[in-house]
Amino acid sequence: MVNLCVIKIGGNVIDNEQSLQSFLSDFAAVDGLKILVHGGGKIASKIGEQLGIQSNYINGRRITDDATIDLVTMVYGGLVNKKIVAQLQALQCNAIGLTGADGNIIAANKRPVKEIDFGWVGDVEKVNVERLLILVNNNFVPVFAPLTHDQQGHILNTNADTIASSLAVALSAYYNVRLVYCFEKKGVLENVEDEQSVINLINKETYKRLLAENKLFEGILPKLDNAFAAINAGVNEVLIGDAKDIKQNTGHHTIGTLITN
Amino acid sequence: MVNLCVIKIGGNVIDNEQSLQSFLSDFAAVDGLKILVHGGGKIASKIGEQLGIQSNYINGRRITDDATIDLVTMVYGGLVNKKIVAQLQALQCNAIGLTGADGNIIAANKRPVKEIDFGWVGDVEKVNVERLLILVNNNFVPVFAPLTHDQQGHILNTNADTIASSLAVALSAYYNVRLVYCFEKKGVLENVEDEQSVINLINKETYKRLLAENKLFEGILPKLDNAFAAINAGVNEVLIGDAKDIKQNTGHHTIGTLITN
Repeated sequence: MVNLCVIKIGGNVIDNEQSLQSFLSDFAAVDGLKILVHGGGKIASKIGEQLGIQSNYINGRRITDDATIDLVTMVYGGLVNKKIVAQLQALQCNAIGLTGADGNIIAANKRPVKEIDFGWVGDVEKVNVERLLILVNNNFVPVFAPLTHDQQGHILNTNADTIASSLAVALSAYYNVRLVYCFEKKGVLENVEDEQSVINLINKETYKRLLAENKLFEGILPKLDNAFAAINAGVNEVLIGDAKDIKQNTGHHTIGTLITN
Repeated sequence: MVNLCVIKIGGNVIDNEQSLQSFLSDFAAVDGLKILVHGGGKIASKIGEQLGIQSNYINGRRITDDATIDLVTMVYGGLVNKKIVAQLQALQCNAIGLTGADGNIIAANKRPVKEIDFGWVGDVEKVNVERLLILVNNNFVPVFAPLTHDQQGHILNTNADTIASSLAVALSAYYNVRLVYCFEKKGVLENVEDEQSVINLINKETYKRLLAENKLFEGILPKLDNAFAAINAGVNEVLIGDAKDIKQNTGHHTIGTLITN
């Protein structure tokens, strides 16, 4: 099977114009099939403040009310997404900006109200992968904003990490998929204080050992659990690393943390 | 050749939630290949006001400065476009929302500064029609926001009528294209006061005669000139009519004004 990379960048890359520009240059130069998923960044909160849209949190979790879903649809789906697309096109990368609503590529369910009503938040229900394959196989480079839809006419705010892993899992039936999560460190560190202590390879075996030895920083555990969930669902490799290292981390000689079966 | 309709709706349809919903139901029911191009609407000015972005006009023409291009990228490319896409998907119409930057489908030139510096405004340079054909031939229904790009990383504000006619002309090499302009009247009227006085068919011959007889309302002349320009460039038919009549106006028994060679 042919290789394909699904790469997720977060707010820290998007919020800084220079780091975004530099990342996009590297991304455009990545060989082979690729998909970009971007998070939101602080720009939505900034514009929201100017519009008098209050950020509402319950138990530390953001609520997406009517005003907020319009805000993130504008900012993530319009401003951030289309700027990235225009910049990638200028770099000869054939980007096409998408939300999950476009082509119904990612159908989601509005999160059911239990203790908390999260509002217009979506949990991925299904990736219509054949629609995505048409784009990928015709040399488009999909760029996803962290938005899906409920198939009933509503856009839903959706976690970018989840979108990336859902796409990676769906595509793993057709490609050798590497799912790359960019974050603010070089990789999973053995010593959080030491950027040089990247653990280069983690498999199920070594993960168990690292856990038993209590060697991992707690904050990284959800990321690793998600990584193994993707691998259990068919993704070949998950890489956790720095957006600055995207060139190496999409190639053979990775310098982040490569997670395999 | 197979038929294809390029349909342009303006702000009057978009600004009213009910008229938009009703138009989209009719649009989803249109048989055959179709493309939607939407204008901006008043929502951008409203949000711009809230953000403290002043609308700048020189000689009655709007200037797209840095803040304004970000505003319209958000509102046209994000809020308006993605809401339309989500609503069409709910109606089983396989919409995919696009700007000209996506897939580099519409490359434009930033308008040269002469007497007036229009700012980030684009004049269409080229439609990369083969990219658009991939989408159309794979059952996607493209929905274009009135935005293009300069191929150097910048989004450009671009007239929706011009986008519609540029797409129609480029597609006319592959399809029998009908270009449908929706406006606030039933069609070109012989008597502007009388909605029943639609002229059902205008060709070059009759256009000359109507002009000679001074029978046409002046405001309609630019629309008719544009229509004949599109026809001279290969478009089969142009129809000018009411968004409410889109069903009939995309079929055999049109009730707007059909313009042919």
